[in-house]
Formats: sequence, structure tokens, C-alpha cells
Amino acid sequence: MSSGNFLELCDFSQDELRALLDLSVQLKQLYKEGGRDTCLAGKTMAMVFEKPSSRTRISFQVGMAQLGGSSIYLRPEDIGGLGVREPIKDLMRVLNGYVDVVVARTFGHDSVVELAEYATISVINALSDYNHPCQAMADMLTIQEHLGDLSGRKLVYVGDGNNVARSLGAASVKLGLQFVVVTPKGYELDDEFLAKLARQDGSGSIECASDPAAAVHGADVIYTDTWTSMGQEEEKEKRIKDFTGFQVNNELLSKTGKNPMVMHCLPAYRGLEITDEVIEAQQKAIFDQAENRLHFQRALLKHLCG
Amino acid sequence: MSSGNFLELCDFSQDELRALLDLSVQLKQLYKEGGRDTCLAGKTMAMVFEKPSSRTRISFQVGMAQLGGSSIYLRPEDIGGLGVREPIKDLMRVLNGYVDVVVARTFGHDSVVELAEYATISVINALSDYNHPCQAMADMLTIQEHLGDLSGRKLVYVGDGNNVARSLGAASVKLGLQFVVVTPKGYELDDEFLAKLARQDGSGSIECASDPAAAVHGADVIYTDTWTSMGQEEEKEKRIKDFTGFQVNNELLSKTGKNPMVMHCLPAYRGLEITDEVIEAQQKAIFDQAENRLHFQRALLKHLCG
Amino acid sequence: MSSGNFLELCDFSQDELRALLDLSVQLKQLYKEGGRDTCLAGKTMAMVFEKPSSRTRISFQVGMAQLGGSSIYLRPEDIGGLGVREPIKDLMRVLNGYVDVVVARTFGHDSVVELAEYATISVINALSDYNHPCQAMADMLTIQEHLGDLSGRKLVYVGDGNNVARSLGAASVKLGLQFVVVTPKGYELDDEFLAKLARQDGSGSIECASDPAAAVHGADVIYTDTWTSMGQEEEKEKRIKDFTGFQVNNELLSKTGKNPMVMHCLPAYRGLEITDEVIEAQQKAIFDQAENRLHFQRALLKHLCG
Repeated sequence: MSSGNFLELCDFSQDELRALLDLSVQLKQLYKEGGRDTCLAGKTMAMVFEKPSSRTRISFQVGMAQLGGSSIYLRPEDIGGLGVREPIKDLMRVLNGYVDVVVARTFGHDSVVELAEYATISVINALSDYNHPCQAMADMLTIQEHLGDLSGRKLVYVGDGNNVARSLGAASVKLGLQFVVVTPKGYELDDEFLAKLARQDGSGSIECASDPAAAVHGADVIYTDTWTSMGQEEEKEKRIKDFTGFQVNNELLSKTGKNPMVMHCLPAYRGLEITDEVIEAQQKAIFDQAENRLHFQRALLKHLCG
Repeated sequence: MSSGNFLELCDFSQDELRALLDLSVQLKQLYKEGGRDTCLAGKTMAMVFEKPSSRTRISFQVGMAQLGGSSIYLRPEDIGGLGVREPIKDLMRVLNGYVDVVVARTFGHDSVVELAEYATISVINALSDYNHPCQAMADMLTIQEHLGDLSGRKLVYVGDGNNVARSLGAASVKLGLQFVVVTPKGYELDDEFLAKLARQDGSGSIECASDPAAAVHGADVIYTDTWTSMGQEEEKEKRIKDFTGFQVNNELLSKTGKNPMVMHCLPAYRGLEITDEVIEAQQKAIFDQAENRLHFQRALLKHLCG
Repeated sequence: MSSGNFLELCDFSQDELRALLDLSVQLKQLYKEGGRDTCLAGKTMAMVFEKPSSRTRISFQVGMAQLGGSSIYLRPEDIGGLGVREPIKDLMRVLNGYVDVVVARTFGHDSVVELAEYATISVINALSDYNHPCQAMADMLTIQEHLGDLSGRKLVYVGDGNNVARSLGAASVKLGLQFVVVTPKGYELDDEFLAKLARQDGSGSIECASDPAAAVHGADVIYTDTWTSMGQEEEKEKRIKDFTGFQVNNELLSKTGKNPMVMHCLPAYRGLEITDEVIEAQQKAIFDQAENRLHFQRALLKHLCG
């Protein structure tokens, strides 16, 4: 692996990402059979979270516990605010002396990058405004479980060109999927990121689109996420208007001409980006996706700290 | 046991409850002798708490740790509010994939029931507005330790016909005590609950009363709880007035004609529902009661997840 | 050791403190070599914190985990406020039944003393307005690592005559250092504490001064701390004015006539009590100091609960 950190998928080769998926599958099977791997006994993980989280927090803490380690969850007010009470570099230099790995969930991506810069231990990006690599890898694991081989699958992301979309794009390019991101005008993926993706290894592709009905044609997987992420609450009304026509509902699914798997990284806002009907019909995939956060991240922790 | 959940005592037969008490006694002895039972090694518990708590939280976390497992404490803001950021059913379906047991402390009883409805793992009710089964079982363990056999003991609950009173009533009926609940007008146990209790197995009885001095006559145990529970703060002044004459003090104890044991599930508000004098004199029973939360809940966790 | 608590250094003889330092060194070496000592397996620690903290919280939780035990972090709102929802004595009597050790970080020193008064288990003072014994012991460990023998070293504390200064004074007197505390007028150590120190065993000395440039002459170690501690925020402007001339910067360091080690217990406010330049040049000592909180406290936990 190119480094001891896990900040974005573009830092890794397709082979490295495939190896992480393989390890995830292997450990998931071990645990489902009632086995245990306590390779992190005596190790500790600090979680530096600027935003609350259900899935991310619980899946990391459970993963660490299942590997025999311990975790400490630090909310913003527990450390006096990230970069507020003391510079990020001081916090990281203190953490270097105490724990074996830091899992960070920050607003700005530069915060997690700065943590990594001062780290002598591993830093894992557990979501930033820029990307969400753990989610995308858990999603790849889920698609693989549901559809078999990832290669050549058409994955259409319908909605906001956000952190989740970026990481799905990177994972798709690396792991051989045909990724289509369909967004309203003004919510497209940024050119800088697209240019970066174009320089990656991997046999997949990425395509940007603006018409959901056309874009989903032939899709194996339809993916959506909230239209209004944490920190964007004041834009909510505007966004709901801007995303008209981008709801994942049965009508849109019918345009695929197939019986696609539907994914959502949760929390889902029924009646906005997705209908209750679709969620309830597709709950197996959606909650497998949530569960696979655990299975991927446990593998990641073992890989980085084991 | 009738199900993998622990939501209310009426869901269990008297034999099942007795078996849980027996297991509590057995594990308490093991731990007091310095032994350990790590039957939950590698297992994890999520605690979903809408209200803060000292005793409930600590006793569950210590119990889980002593059984070799791990716990994750989730405050309302950690999950964006129970049922607010995402429906309770989605939260529960996510938790199903991560942990082995959920301990919930909710305002509405319907919230814990809804969690259980969507659970494929065990759900434990760690207090709702309706009842408090873990407290009542810890109390039964305490009475048994102090007085020997539970059967036929007269337990008089003086105060608010609340969640604690309901669960004490259920435990008493199931386990053979003579339970008297004496409340001011307007604070009685509800008829629906009383009708439900009347349909239970068990050799105990329940009686509602309104005159404390008369009701406590012959009591082996006097029990009280705060007059103003969490969430009722705005009624505090009215409640203090309404509960005049319901204080557990030496004068009331003298009306028992015995030397009764006094219990309180804490926190206690000295000078309101109980005097400082009575608490300090009866601290052995009262703090044994608190400690027995640990011993009962450890047994419960072993029973449900072991 | 004189008691099962760790409230202030004056409660211990110089030999007891030296033994704790020796144990810290020994355990630090064991862990640095990849060894483990799980003497606290099955034990639990409750952390009762009135103030947030990065270093204190993480170092204690990691230390406990590395010794095989578990910890529960309780914020003020988790327990309804220390001494607010229920008297401190009730909280402590409940904790006696659940956990093996309590680590308290309080505003008033009387709170931690009251906890200890009602404890049947060990209570550790993890900072009060009066003192900070764990910090001072970690600092002694750090000085010993950097300079070798502690005896006769000149340690000059520049700044506020606060809790950290008091504990450094006590540690210095006990362990044979020449301690000089140089403060602006109005921020001196109190006479009562100085009188107490004068009655201690130990071959060290303490001297109060008011002119930084003169006081630092010949110093082996220069130590500073924030001018405005938690809870004093409203005095910040006044304090910045009052502490003019007390900044630890290269000019002040040059007055030592030596190449002194610089220490800071963090968080550091660059441009106020210390310059960025000095911190960055002295980061080895300063972050060793932070790390040594872990190594001292792990030894303390083993000593008290092992």
C-alpha cells in the first residue's frame, strides 16, 4: 500500500483496492462463521469527529472491538473544537504518542490532510466534504455480493455531485465499473476531480450527465444520497427545488429497462431523493451496504495496524 | 424465555423471572469472589439513550465489560435524535448489522417497542415513560438479599404512579409479593395497566391506596421515587404541592408498626420525597439497590446474548 | 502508599513518588518493546469530568485499555452535573458499587476531595483548580528522560501561579529539584500552599520571584502554561495585559545563559505565553511530556488497582 494512511482512493492502485476488498470478504466470512481475529489486541483508535454519525461511528467502534482493540470517540466539544482550542498539528502530535490509528470525520478535507501530515501513525478519512472512501469501498463490496463480478457493471449515481459521488467515481474507475453521475446543473462534479480521475489506473470509466431518465438506461445499480448534507441545512429549500426530477422512484427505475439494485448510503429522506416504496423494496441492498461499512473498515484497520 | 427482547415483565412467566434472579445471584457471587465469565467476548452492545442516566448507563457498560464485551453509548445528538434524522426502523435495521444487543432508554414506550419490532437482535428496555423492568428486577434481588424469601412480603410504594411503580407492580405480582401503591389523587396507576396485571400468572397481589399512613401499616419494604421525572420539570411546583403528605420520613415509617427496609431508585431529592435522615439511615439498602442494577443486567445480557 | 487515592503529591513521601516514577519507566519500556501487562483485565474505570480535556481523557483511557481494563467517560451532562442532580456523596456511593477506580477532573478541589471521602475504591485527581499531580509526575518523568538525574536541576516556571505550578512545586520539593516560580504581581502561589510545602520531606527547594529575566538565570528547564485556564475566559484581556513580559521566547531563553529544555503542558497559545518558534524548536520535549501522561498514569492505575 502506498502509505499508512487512507485518505482517498486515488492514492491506491487498483490492485491494492482489490486486495482490501478480498480481505473484507475473508474477514466477513470468518465473523459470520463465529470466528474472531484479535490482531489488534492492546491497540487503540481515536475517533476525531466534527460531525455526528451513526453508521460511521458504530461500524468503526465495532470493527475495532471485534479485532480486540479499543476506541475513544471524541466529539468536537471534547477537544475544544478541531483546530480551535489548539492547532491541528498539536492535536495530531499528541495523538501520535497515545494511539495507533486516528479515524477522522471532518468538514474540510484539508483538516484530515493536515492530520495525516503530522501523523506518525495511520490516519483514516471517515468522510470529509471532499470524499468518502470507506463508504465507496463498502459499496463495492455490496455490489460484488449482490451482482458478482464488478467489472463492466453500470452504476448510475443520481443526485448531488458530492463527496460520496467522488469516491464512487474513483472506486468505479479503479475497479472496472461504468460510472455515470447524473446531477442537476450547478451540482456537477468539479473539473479538477474529473481530471484527476482521468489520470488513474483501472479499467472503469466515468461519464457526467444531466438527464436522469436517459442516464439510467441499462443501469445495473442506481445509487442516491441526500440532497442536503450536514452543514448545508440553510440551502435545503433551494436544493429541493433544484433537484426536482432527480428522485429515485419506481418511474425512474422503469427507465433502466432492467431490474436494478438500488443503493443509498443513508440516512435517507423518504419523499425527497428516494421514495419510501423504493427503500422498503430494496432494503436488503441498502442495509447490506450499511453493514458492509463494518466489514470493509475492519479489514482496513487490520491492514493498516495489524 | 418468550422472546429475545426484554421490554416488560408481563412478557415473562414467573418461572422465567425467577430464573433470571437466580442467574443474577449466581453471577454476583462469582464476581464477588473475583471470578469472571467472559461469555460475551467479541460481542458488542449499542446504547440508544434519549435521556441521560448515571446508574443505567454505567451499570450496563460495566456489566458488558465484565462479560468480555464492548459497548457504544449513543446520546440523542450522536444519532441526530431518535426518529428525527432517520426513522427508528432505519436506525434499528442498521444496528442489526453491527451489534449484538441494543439497550434503549426512551421517552415514549412506543419507541422501544418500534426498535424491537424491527430488530433481529435483542432489545432491552432500560426505562421508558411506561415502565422500568431492569430496575424492578434489581429491586427484587435487593429485597431477597435483605429479607430472604420474597413471597408474601408487603412492599408499599409511596408516590407517583409512574414507570417504576408499574414495573414494581408487575414484579410483585409475578414473584409473590403483596404490592400496595399509594398515590395522591391524579397520580394513580392507569386502569389499563391494572387490568393487564390482573391477567398475569404469579401469586402476588396489587392494591391501590390513597392514604400513606394507613397504607404502610405492616410494610416490610417502603419504596419511593422522585415526584418529578425527567421531562416533567415544568410541573415541578404543582407536583410538590400535590404530593404533600407523601414524603417518606421517620413519622411515616413509624406507621408501619415494623422496622421496614426503605428503598429508592435514585437520584433522591432530599427534603421532597424522602428525608436526608431516612436515606442516610437506609443507605445500605438503597445503594445495594443501585449496585444490583449491575448484577441483574449482567445476568440479563448473558441470558439474551450468551 | 499512604492511601488508595491520588489527590495531591503532598500526600505521598518522596520514596513513594520515586517508586511511581520507576514503575512508569519500567512499564513504558515494556510497551515500547511491544509487551503488554493486562493486570487490570475485567476492571473498570469511571471518568467524572467537569471540564473537557484531550490529553487527560485520552491518556487515561488508553492507559486503562492497555492494562486490559475498560473505561466509561462521563461528561457533566451525562450525570446531570456534578453535585447538581444528586449530591456528590450519592454519586460516589453508586460508583463504589460499579467500578474499580474513579478519575475526576473538577473545577473545585473540594469536589474531588468529597468524592474521595465517600469512596471505598480509588479516586484519582486528574486536575482541579488547586492542583494537577498527574501532570507534574509526567513532567518529572520527562525531565528525567531528557536530563538524567532530577536532583539539583533548576526548573523555572514562568507564568500563572496555578494548579500546574503548585503540583510542579510539590514534585520538585519531593524529588530534589530547585524550583523557581516567577509570576506577575497578583498571580503568586498562595501562602497557605507555600507553608504546606515547607513542611514536606524531600531535598528540593521552592523560591518565588517576579522578574523573569533574572529568575531564569541558570535554568535547566523553563516551563510555562496558559495564562487563562478554563473557567477564566472572562478575565482573558486583563490577564494578557498583566502577563506582559512573561512570554517564553528566545530572548527570555537567552537569559538562562544555558540551552534549557522548554516544557508546556498544552494546549499552547502561540504568541501569548510562548512563541511558535520556541514550541516548534522544543517540540520533542513538549510532546514527550504529553505522551508521558500515558506512561505515568498507566503506572498509577496499576499501582492503585492492580
